[in-house]
Amino acid sequence: MTEQLNVQQMAERLCAADNILILCHKNPDGDTIGCGSALCHALKALGKTAAVLCSDAVPSRYSFTAPVPFRGEFEPKTVVAVDVASVQLFGENNGMPQYTRHIDLCIDHHTGNSGYADFTLLDGNAAAAAELLYEVISEMGVEITPLIANCLYTGLATDTGCFRFSSTTANTHIVAAKLILAGAQVEELNTLLFDTKPRERMEAERIARNHLEYHLEGRCALMYLTRDEIEQSGVDPADLEELTSLPISIEGVKVGLLLRQQPGGSYRISVRAAKGVDACAIARRLGGGGHTRAAGCELLGNLDNAKSAILAEVEAELDRPETQEES
Amino acid sequence: MTEQLNVQQMAERLCAADNILILCHKNPDGDTIGCGSALCHALKALGKTAAVLCSDAVPSRYSFTAPVPFRGEFEPKTVVAVDVASVQLFGENNGMPQYTRHIDLCIDHHTGNSGYADFTLLDGNAAAAAELLYEVISEMGVEITPLIANCLYTGLATDTGCFRFSSTTANTHIVAAKLILAGAQVEELNTLLFDTKPRERMEAERIARNHLEYHLEGRCALMYLTRDEIEQSGVDPADLEELTSLPISIEGVKVGLLLRQQPGGSYRISVRAAKGVDACAIARRLGGGGHTRAAGCELLGNLDNAKSAILAEVEAELDRPETQEES
Repeated sequence: MTEQLNVQQMAERLCAADNILILCHKNPDGDTIGCGSALCHALKALGKTAAVLCSDAVPSRYSFTAPVPFRGEFEPKTVVAVDVASVQLFGENNGMPQYTRHIDLCIDHHTGNSGYADFTLLDGNAAAAAELLYEVISEMGVEITPLIANCLYTGLATDTGCFRFSSTTANTHIVAAKLILAGAQVEELNTLLFDTKPRERMEAERIARNHLEYHLEGRCALMYLTRDEIEQSGVDPADLEELTSLPISIEGVKVGLLLRQQPGGSYRISVRAAKGVDACAIARRLGGGGHTRAAGCELLGNLDNAKSAILAEVEAELDRPETQEES
Repeated sequence: MTEQLNVQQMAERLCAADNILILCHKNPDGDTIGCGSALCHALKALGKTAAVLCSDAVPSRYSFTAPVPFRGEFEPKTVVAVDVASVQLFGENNGMPQYTRHIDLCIDHHTGNSGYADFTLLDGNAAAAAELLYEVISEMGVEITPLIANCLYTGLATDTGCFRFSSTTANTHIVAAKLILAGAQVEELNTLLFDTKPRERMEAERIARNHLEYHLEGRCALMYLTRDEIEQSGVDPADLEELTSLPISIEGVKVGLLLRQQPGGSYRISVRAAKGVDACAIARRLGGGGHTRAAGCELLGNLDNAKSAILAEVEAELDRPETQEES
């Protein structure tokens, strides 16, 4: 059982610690890396020894956050996880397993946080862990430098699709304003984070858009990419994540599907649903899971099989009387 | 010569007025419509007679702002323009010309405002006219209702690409936070404004992406749409505006071009430039104009001619010694 802390208590524990190892989640995104880097810079500003460990390589677009990578230079006395909902998300590479047996502190915004740390600061209303960490670093008495502001803005902006997602609250905007006043370079950051796509990503999107299909009287839109197409485009598979929101963005579409063939041949299906439709219910019937608006599953067999299996479940969900009423 | 007012003086003049006609600019966007509607609702809350006039139809996506359309029900005693930089932008339809001979008040955020009104409230640092109008309505002592908040949020979000453009400041985020606290339904609005694309728009984008070309060692990316393709896709030409930012979003690209063939056969060319490159200089040499980062021109002749003419100017600009140093 973890003990819940408030912002002030978490700040006190961090101020009292030294030789601090900060852990990010695997397949790192802007929030976990932005938080890891910001906390590391803040602890170093207090004269402490600190470094960041992640099971996977930090994507190059986040390298400006300048996390100090942990290479065993010190014996960690305090281990703190940022933006990590459960121990499974730490990953297995870079020597990670030897540091995840005991986690002292956790700062997170996932309501489903499993409570694996001794002490946890959890705020499910925060749109990003960075929104919460901003309060912690301020409470620690550390000046928010332009570099720390850039790190926290990266977490805030990437986790909210640049303030577009429903998780965005008044407080998210207030923290963004404070980070800009502290020197966050939002023009450069927004260009880097949202308006810089590799050529390979453009090519993969071109192919996927050529595969756009409408089903169920236009209530469902579907795109797909075969393994060969993904390989030939040269795209980094992580860069395909954004395409999951394309089919649902079409007028009149209630369920958007993206089918990506995996290296083993199976199809990974991302399900996105409009308000009033349950994406998770669709994915769950095929052995998957997720949230109401965004869920996923993986199906063996060829493309036609995968399509008909998922479309049957989409139809069942859309034709439920409850869905009809809500949507 | 116009007289410049501050927020308080503009609020006083509006509070003293009655039978107020609010004018929006032609080809209306979210900012001019959001401001027109918000100001109209605010004036009506004070018991005044007010209505909104626009030369072109209000796009259906903004109909929720519920502007009260002017149909000559009253004799306007005060005419106020919102988000209109010059008299040319009023347009000629819907009986507009008879009301633009004398403009009493103007609320705007375009630094190039021509000063056509008797009294002007101008703030070039505001990311949207809505950012400024929020202060005016607050100063008028009118409660920011959820409807007014929705209208102002629409202006703020659409003019900043949902807080992505370089015009976004700390104050933009602070106003967004206040509007959310006042009841703006940002989840629904963001879905409507940014994540709802007509099928026809998807089809036109698919075709444009299939026409992607790289030139000048990848420093220039170009897309085009012929008149026939635009017609066959069925897209509303206004919905193609967003595509202008696609080519420049590709990694390594310094100049992005979108060529759209017009009904008359000529090619309208939108030029977008990365930091350190002057899009306006490129467009100006072909008889066009605009801003440093976004400019345009129109060329007669066929596609190949239009391409070679614009690419020659792009090359000249990219090879200028100053550009080489800056970029």
